[in-house]
Amino acid sequence: MTGFSSFDAVRSQMAQATGPDSAAGAAATDRNGQLTKPPGALGRLEDLAIWYAGWRGNPRPGIAAPQVIVFAGNHGVTARGVSAFPAEVTAQMVANFQAGGAAINQLAKLAGARMDVHALELDRPTQDFTQGPAMSEAECAAAFATGWDAVDPQADLLVVGEMGIGNTTAAAAIAHALYGGTAADWTGRGTGVDETGLDRKTAVVAEAVALHGGSGDGLDILARLGGRELAAMAGAIAAARGHRIPVILDGFICCAAAACLAETMPGALDHCVAGHQSTERAHQALLERLGKTPLLSLGLRLGEGSGAALAIQVLKGAVACHSGMATFAEAGVADG
Amino acid sequence: MTGFSSFDAVRSQMAQATGPDSAAGAAATDRNGQLTKPPGALGRLEDLAIWYAGWRGNPRPGIAAPQVIVFAGNHGVTARGVSAFPAEVTAQMVANFQAGGAAINQLAKLAGARMDVHALELDRPTQDFTQGPAMSEAECAAAFATGWDAVDPQADLLVVGEMGIGNTTAAAAIAHALYGGTAADWTGRGTGVDETGLDRKTAVVAEAVALHGGSGDGLDILARLGGRELAAMAGAIAAARGHRIPVILDGFICCAAAACLAETMPGALDHCVAGHQSTERAHQALLERLGKTPLLSLGLRLGEGSGAALAIQVLKGAVACHSGMATFAEAGVADG
Repeated sequence: MTGFSSFDAVRSQMAQATGPDSAAGAAATDRNGQLTKPPGALGRLEDLAIWYAGWRGNPRPGIAAPQVIVFAGNHGVTARGVSAFPAEVTAQMVANFQAGGAAINQLAKLAGARMDVHALELDRPTQDFTQGPAMSEAECAAAFATGWDAVDPQADLLVVGEMGIGNTTAAAAIAHALYGGTAADWTGRGTGVDETGLDRKTAVVAEAVALHGGSGDGLDILARLGGRELAAMAGAIAAARGHRIPVILDGFICCAAAACLAETMPGALDHCVAGHQSTERAHQALLERLGKTPLLSLGLRLGEGSGAALAIQVLKGAVACHSGMATFAEAGVADG
Repeated sequence: MTGFSSFDAVRSQMAQATGPDSAAGAAATDRNGQLTKPPGALGRLEDLAIWYAGWRGNPRPGIAAPQVIVFAGNHGVTARGVSAFPAEVTAQMVANFQAGGAAINQLAKLAGARMDVHALELDRPTQDFTQGPAMSEAECAAAFATGWDAVDPQADLLVVGEMGIGNTTAAAAIAHALYGGTAADWTGRGTGVDETGLDRKTAVVAEAVALHGGSGDGLDILARLGGRELAAMAGAIAAARGHRIPVILDGFICCAAAACLAETMPGALDHCVAGHQSTERAHQALLERLGKTPLLSLGLRLGEGSGAALAIQVLKGAVACHSGMATFAEAGVADG
């Protein structure tokens, strides 16, 4: 167990992570230029394979052990009527994940991924962050540590997903606090609130950021406006960088958690690609702030890691082509 | 063997195909509404699963037997200097497909698809269509029949791909003849011709359409401006409709072949989705004419069926969620 007791311990651990293996990346780039296809004809698949090769330190890698982790948490802010679903649904959906009945179960299975579920103190929701910090530093660091420790060091690809009624409100507040603009810029319909619900949710986000905005770095904002599942996602993403395990980011909530890392340490998300663009209103703007172009755009807005899990297949395709194709010399094909 | 000897025989066979099973589609729509997710939260995956269920006549289908077929042909128009690669590469790449070394081999394997390769008289290129018809009606019907017969009636999903140096020129000429505009609107860089090559290619497309434009329906245009691999792709897509096997369309050349069917019989592509949008200049415009929104947009421009084969994974994800998820009642989850 990592057991971070403070954010200074987290920052110190994050600072120890190294970057990708540039020699492996260069060798992968060289191999890519020899494969039996016109230069660049596999588009983003080529960039993905080279990026993956660098992080794995292997110019001809495979993807054999993807891991999907779903974190769940409950939010005090649901008392403000910000969600279309009651808070009880968080625990009900955790049971559904454990029984194999949710969308993420099907997509993880299809991707050949191990799937783990971590419910974080569901019977102890975070504080309503319009009244005070959602979590203390110690609570947030503990949730971060749960995420950190949940990553299998032997995994070769990571997706983190979430379940938490009320958590698009937390994500919107984080994005608003980190990137400015107005509350309305960052607040969307989540699982499907109506117009009145959206107005109420936007007002809650504005109140929260008025209270907590400008407080410290990404980790401080994560504690004040996040939730345990967001902190755990951030912890898992940070741990993956330490293990040089590439990460596929999911939707708005996952990206808000990731943004807290990016605002804590430059380059903290260099090992991440954006799996998809969801229809949650501000996800596109958030991806732009992170400098990530999504692999898929299929109108998903479910969370759970579902869009990222689907995008595992794209990365697998990229790596399969890169590592499995013949070179011009091997195949006896004229190269233009 | 089907052995079409004329286009009238093809038209007659195409007219016998029936539509999707509306009862299965309605039952799939009903099931979709009961699954443990907010309504619409899986976006296009929901539409895809319902569409697939209708064509397969099964409200809770699986995808167990996808088939990828790659057709190859040679083109007389290569004498006009329209490609960045020599015509010999067609046969060299067929050998690469047979040896398992091409991109499509890796992507078909990843999708769990059977892959077949049909080389169509590579030592007898089609006529240069700036001088006369690329193929006679009998030649085109024979290639169409090869494609028709190549479809495994037991397949539950089909991707058709191609290899044929010079075939983006044929595809551009088909699109220009079918949809008007200018030759420049439809002509792109293919495997990567330079600016001078693109000018030459555009002039060739303009010449070809000046000679053959306005000649009959889609099948007539296919014979005059197509190639054997395009005719075979059209035949396979038409046969799949007869078997109610859904098809994922690939890039510009595949879509040009498909467009010939659409301009022969209304609804001929109702069993098709667009797998991806390639970077070949006019693919987007062609998809718009076909009324299809691509599932992926990853900058691919390789052909071979590669983009469509990658998109098999998206459709598999859609069907896995639809058929594998628990309902609200089964999971004991409150539905809002």
